[in-house]
Amino acid sequence: MKQLKDRILKEGKVLPGNIIKVDGFLNHRVDPRLMQDIADEFARHFDLRQVTLVMTAEASGIALATICAHRWGLPLVFAKKAKSDNIEGGLYQSDIFSYTYKKKVTLLVSNEWIQPSDKVLIIDDFMANGEAIRGLVDIVKEAGATLAGVGIAVEKGFQGGGDRLRAAGVDVRSLAIIEQADENGILFRED
Amino acid sequence: MKQLKDRILKEGKVLPGNIIKVDGFLNHRVDPRLMQDIADEFARHFDLRQVTLVMTAEASGIALATICAHRWGLPLVFAKKAKSDNIEGGLYQSDIFSYTYKKKVTLLVSNEWIQPSDKVLIIDDFMANGEAIRGLVDIVKEAGATLAGVGIAVEKGFQGGGDRLRAAGVDVRSLAIIEQADENGILFRED
Repeated sequence: MKQLKDRILKEGKVLPGNIIKVDGFLNHRVDPRLMQDIADEFARHFDLRQVTLVMTAEASGIALATICAHRWGLPLVFAKKAKSDNIEGGLYQSDIFSYTYKKKVTLLVSNEWIQPSDKVLIIDDFMANGEAIRGLVDIVKEAGATLAGVGIAVEKGFQGGGDRLRAAGVDVRSLAIIEQADENGILFRED
Repeated sequence: MKQLKDRILKEGKVLPGNIIKVDGFLNHRVDPRLMQDIADEFARHFDLRQVTLVMTAEASGIALATICAHRWGLPLVFAKKAKSDNIEGGLYQSDIFSYTYKKKVTLLVSNEWIQPSDKVLIIDDFMANGEAIRGLVDIVKEAGATLAGVGIAVEKGFQGGGDRLRAAGVDVRSLAIIEQADENGILFRED
């Protein structure tokens, strides 16, 4: 998606350790108009007539996923991240490794809000190692629901999370896949 | 706001300890159409021509605040919650007490994304003790920006957070103020 790649090139910053900072429009300050255009781009790829539920994980994915759900007239469920071992009953859960916090995090979704009849489109702002998405995919399976696909705004292609999901047969659509990010700049995978 | 109160009465659950669960439409599963109607209700109260920035705190406030920002053509900034003492420079911060996690949490906003010229409308889905809002108000002051007001979907009036802000001169508009929630049901403050 040209508009998104242009924003990344213009406003993104590469920090040491191949960290790509896009917090001016995606995950700290949010440009809702860009979120709308991203939602419309996903709508060209996925067959939304086959989707009943949008799902993401807290926190930063919520902004984009909410605009998508609103634009498509669908409900949104966001998985919560457990901060303790104090897990209630009635929850689907999946343990993931958070590279941001360097520790195990448990994603939780109440079994009230996802049904076996649901066709779920997972949306997130960012994918690197793909742990959060793997956890969400686990929860969709655990609920006996159907995974319609995964829509990502920015994927760090060189960390392999997206390609592992694609190899497993998941329909992953990322609108900007970064293959290289270092002192020489940012390079995108060809569409 | 009648629609919101009706949803709370119909779908909300009161748990022991005066905990009100509205996770079927507000803060776990999200009904984006209701978020839109809440945004439009705020627009009738606040003079949005005087607002340049919508602000909230992660995580659950992001859904409503994103729809508000989108609807009003404004950018959104969400404060991050620090999970460590590893605080970078260039950040406005405020320590709050999280009653959910029973510990101190630090709200952080990069000084890149809020300017002294900003007129900030704070939006959140829920207010009880008002600690998160107090922290956001601190950050607006720290940045030298102007606070336009605070818009809340559901306020637990009996916990006093909203009234403390009102007493301090803040324009707080809550669309459903719960005065009592126990085994006898839910009672709202009169408008």
